[in-house]
Order: sequence, then C-alpha cells, then structure tokens
Amino acid sequence: MSSFALNPRLEGDSLFVADLPLSMLRLMKDANYPWLLLVPRKSDLVEIIDLDEAEQGQLMQEIALVSKLLRTVSNCEKLNIGALGNQVSQLHVHVIARFRDDAAWPGPVWGVVPPREYDPESADNLIDHLQDALADAIR
Amino acid sequence: MSSFALNPRLEGDSLFVADLPLSMLRLMKDANYPWLLLVPRKSDLVEIIDLDEAEQGQLMQEIALVSKLLRTVSNCEKLNIGALGNQVSQLHVHVIARFRDDAAWPGPVWGVVPPREYDPESADNLIDHLQDALADAIR
Repeated sequence: MSSFALNPRLEGDSLFVADLPLSMLRLMKDANYPWLLLVPRKSDLVEIIDLDEAEQGQLMQEIALVSKLLRTVSNCEKLNIGALGNQVSQLHVHVIARFRDDAAWPGPVWGVVPPREYDPESADNLIDHLQDALADAIR
Repeated sequence: MSSFALNPRLEGDSLFVADLPLSMLRLMKDANYPWLLLVPRKSDLVEIIDLDEAEQGQLMQEIALVSKLLRTVSNCEKLNIGALGNQVSQLHVHVIARFRDDAAWPGPVWGVVPPREYDPESADNLIDHLQDALADAIR
C-alpha cells in the first residue's frame, strides 16, 4: 500500500486548514464562495464506497462537523455537499456555503464562473476563523 | 410535528423504486443518466445536519448501498453524490451514474441538458433491476 499523497491539482487549488481524524480539511482558493474540501488521507480512493463502513461513518461525521462550522463562520443560506470526482479522481468531498446572491445561485458552483482570487489577508482570516471554530467544536 | 410528504416537484420528476429504512429511493425521469434520489422520510429537513447523528450514519449507509447497486446495475465509470437543494429545499441526495460519453461529462449533470424521456419499458426495466439488486443486497 502506498502512502497518502494529495493530488497536485487539489493541492494547487486549495489551502490547508486542518487534519481531522480521517480527512484533510482545505479551503478552495475561490473567493466567490466559502468552499471547503474534505480529502480522506488514504491512498487509492476514488469513490465513497472505496472506504470501509467505519470510514464511511467517520466521513459523514466530518461532513457534518465541517457543515456546522462553515455555516456558523459564513452565515450562509444553504449548504451544498458533493462528491463528484469527474476531473480529479482522488476522493474529495466539497462542502460549500451558498448565498442567494452568489455567482452561481441557484445552480451548482462547478464550472460556472472562474475562481476569484482571495486577497491573502481574507483567506488567512477565514482559515483562522475555521480553525478557531474547529478547536471550539472538538474541545 | 407534521408527517413526511414528498415535495411535489421531486415527486413529478422521479419514479418510486423502494423504501429503505430512512429514505425513499426514487429514479429521476431523465434517461441521460441513471440517476437516483434518496429522500429521508422525515418532515422539515433541509440540510444533512438537520438529521440527528444516528440518522446521518443511516443516510451514509443508504448512500453506500445505493451507490453499489447503481454501479452494478449501470456498469458506470464514476459515481456522483450530491446534496444541493438550492431549488427544492426538501433534503434529497443525488446518486448518479456517470459515463465518459454522457451528455454532461466531465461537468456535473444539473442544468446542462434538458431531461430526456425514458420509454416506459426502459424505466420499468431499470426499476426492476434496482429492486432485484436491492432484494439481493439486503437478503
């Protein structure tokens, strides 16, 4: 078994936030939407059903935890959760905060408008908020 | 607490397949993609995190079961799983069989091409196959 390596495209498109028990949590570099990724740290995963049943349960717990954090931090109107992987096959789950006035509403976010760059301070602030909320949640 | 009622738009866009312990399983009326919906049978759900933790675990089990069934029955190349709910707020999870030559590949399916009608026999056959595979899986 090879060890976990983050797909280079996922790595380039996102910033590290935290390591959860199963997944790496990352922030997508797209200021259009507060947009997180959960990437289970196991090699050779493509589908959720490539995880064993206990890991699937853990992934759901992490989706729920991150959903609550993101809603609290962003004050969003809707959450979008998705595991697609048509372009990058390494298993990753999108957890996206949506607003009725965002760039893609009411459609899904993928491929609608080009990513909008964060100014570095905003991305750092958002990551700090997420890390603080995570620390509170698991305390 | 009001009892569960399926959203009229979800009902009109899909056909009944089976009742799982938590969710109703339905087939979307779109022959472009073998496309299933899981609709947890509880009232007033919008987000996955509106379910309690045990129900979230059950939902994940049903997503995994249905993913395996759909892959077996469709022989698909990729699964797409999503809980969006921007247009129909009642909580529903999409489980979609994707192919490299399908109408939306490699993008997500939502809103790309108009639904393509099944001939009634094809939809019935697919539902029969799914029901048989489900009966085998839970035997």
